[in-house]
Amino acid sequence: MTPSSEWTAADWIAVFWGPTHMRAWAVGPENQVLAEAESEAGTSTLTPDRFEPALLDTVLGWLDLTRVTDVFVCGMAGARQGWVETPYATVPAPPRGGLPLVEAPVADDGIRVHVLPGMRQDKPPDVMRGEETLMAGLIARESKFDGVVCLPGTHTKWVHISAGEVVSFATFMTGELFGLLSASSVLHYTMDEGGWSDAAFDMAVEESLAMPEQVARKLFGIRAEALLMDLSPGESRARLSGLLVGIEISGSKPYWLGRDIVLVGESELATSYARALASCGLSPRRHDPTDLVIAGLGAARADLLATRATGTQG
Amino acid sequence: MTPSSEWTAADWIAVFWGPTHMRAWAVGPENQVLAEAESEAGTSTLTPDRFEPALLDTVLGWLDLTRVTDVFVCGMAGARQGWVETPYATVPAPPRGGLPLVEAPVADDGIRVHVLPGMRQDKPPDVMRGEETLMAGLIARESKFDGVVCLPGTHTKWVHISAGEVVSFATFMTGELFGLLSASSVLHYTMDEGGWSDAAFDMAVEESLAMPEQVARKLFGIRAEALLMDLSPGESRARLSGLLVGIEISGSKPYWLGRDIVLVGESELATSYARALASCGLSPRRHDPTDLVIAGLGAARADLLATRATGTQG
Repeated sequence: MTPSSEWTAADWIAVFWGPTHMRAWAVGPENQVLAEAESEAGTSTLTPDRFEPALLDTVLGWLDLTRVTDVFVCGMAGARQGWVETPYATVPAPPRGGLPLVEAPVADDGIRVHVLPGMRQDKPPDVMRGEETLMAGLIARESKFDGVVCLPGTHTKWVHISAGEVVSFATFMTGELFGLLSASSVLHYTMDEGGWSDAAFDMAVEESLAMPEQVARKLFGIRAEALLMDLSPGESRARLSGLLVGIEISGSKPYWLGRDIVLVGESELATSYARALASCGLSPRRHDPTDLVIAGLGAARADLLATRATGTQG
Repeated sequence: MTPSSEWTAADWIAVFWGPTHMRAWAVGPENQVLAEAESEAGTSTLTPDRFEPALLDTVLGWLDLTRVTDVFVCGMAGARQGWVETPYATVPAPPRGGLPLVEAPVADDGIRVHVLPGMRQDKPPDVMRGEETLMAGLIARESKFDGVVCLPGTHTKWVHISAGEVVSFATFMTGELFGLLSASSVLHYTMDEGGWSDAAFDMAVEESLAMPEQVARKLFGIRAEALLMDLSPGESRARLSGLLVGIEISGSKPYWLGRDIVLVGESELATSYARALASCGLSPRRHDPTDLVIAGLGAARADLLATRATGTQG
């Protein structure tokens, strides 16, 4: 295949492989993004033998077939049910905690795939796979960062970073609760039409901060208010989000209280978190998740290249 | 059809029609239960024209075809999407609040179907359909009852009763949350096998009582503990239940604090509530839901018969 003007030869390839989506980037010599692609082939939809075809489907156009291209992967591809199981570094530790990358088995000799370790915490028990790489990226960008990072998502993470290490972290099931309740509970009747209301969101955040123990009651209250008071679909949806984000802001207070806060993401969800944090007088700085993934995987690649160089010299 | 020894002629028929199940009882002249039946034909599975066939499928064998049999129905059959919409009595008020029963349209002239009103509360907004009839039954059994009634279920109700009236009530989505999280969230991996642990339940109740704002974190913690610490499926399931029931016990404190408590139900779920309440030093009395439904529908029937008698005399 002759490279066309459409063709992008990646120096290396970065992959964030989550349970429901895979995102990949063709990266150039200065770690700049040359191209990006997204696939619905999340890890939860794949058996181990389907990871390589799914990856090639997405990145084949970025390969220079005259050489081997390194692919660096973080996320659930390293889980037990993933492509190849990688260990967890135990906090407190730097992201990766000095653990080696694990090569995934591939049939195609044009790629070499390196999967990153996750992180675990024993007290209280918690796990992450993928976010540790964004933390490595943050530390690469701000080596002196001392504070807390909030990563909104299906399983939102709060991560305390200090002296280049992940000190501790906490995962909240907020995004998954929102998805289940808005789509599959009695509340779906009142919010199927979509829409949004900042005022309803703000009030719900305030209520959850003041009375977190009332959450299961206030969830049913959305249904009752729609039946009795014509609460609109948009207000219902914003109220559900506000109740759940509000109780999380309350529960994550030991993380954010008195600390520098970074919020990762540009999604609608991340914007809701920013709004809820603002109601507590907090103004988190924002970081772009793509920039942090590339920086984090780039750091892992730099270490690997250094090891290879040492190996050659040794 | 000649009555056989298997045949039960009901004086009247009692029906509790919920979203997922219908329960019916053949009732004798002293309001004693002669027979009972259950059907999967919940209101959420039926269009209005399918209620009569679903009812007849269940109760046909109880009809004395030489006369008309009265059927008294409470529950979601009176909702907007039900068989025939009935109004809500607004609390504070006696159950039914003096509202008339609504006759459902039927083609069969062997039955006359009377659907009971529900109850609503404006501040904070809340609704019930069915439980008000159990409350009428409780008041029929204990006319001087002054206290709070807990009715565990998909949408658990706490009802404050005084001087023969429903003073206020609160609905918690606890049962529905348990169902969604145990079957459809990331937690299902760790509890699909079933099982139970009282110790895990008790500890989770205690944690939710102490730190209700941590609930979304502790939910994810079940997954992490199963991955890292081999938390068993039974412990996972009990822990999920304990976290959710615990936060409800915390949130319902304004209801139960310092009041006589009655717990309705003999289900596994009701037993969990009893266990959680015991951890707060509370020993609720128990009432049988069937007994309360029959007594509540019987009270509505008595009122109707009195009206008919007055109508004849007037």
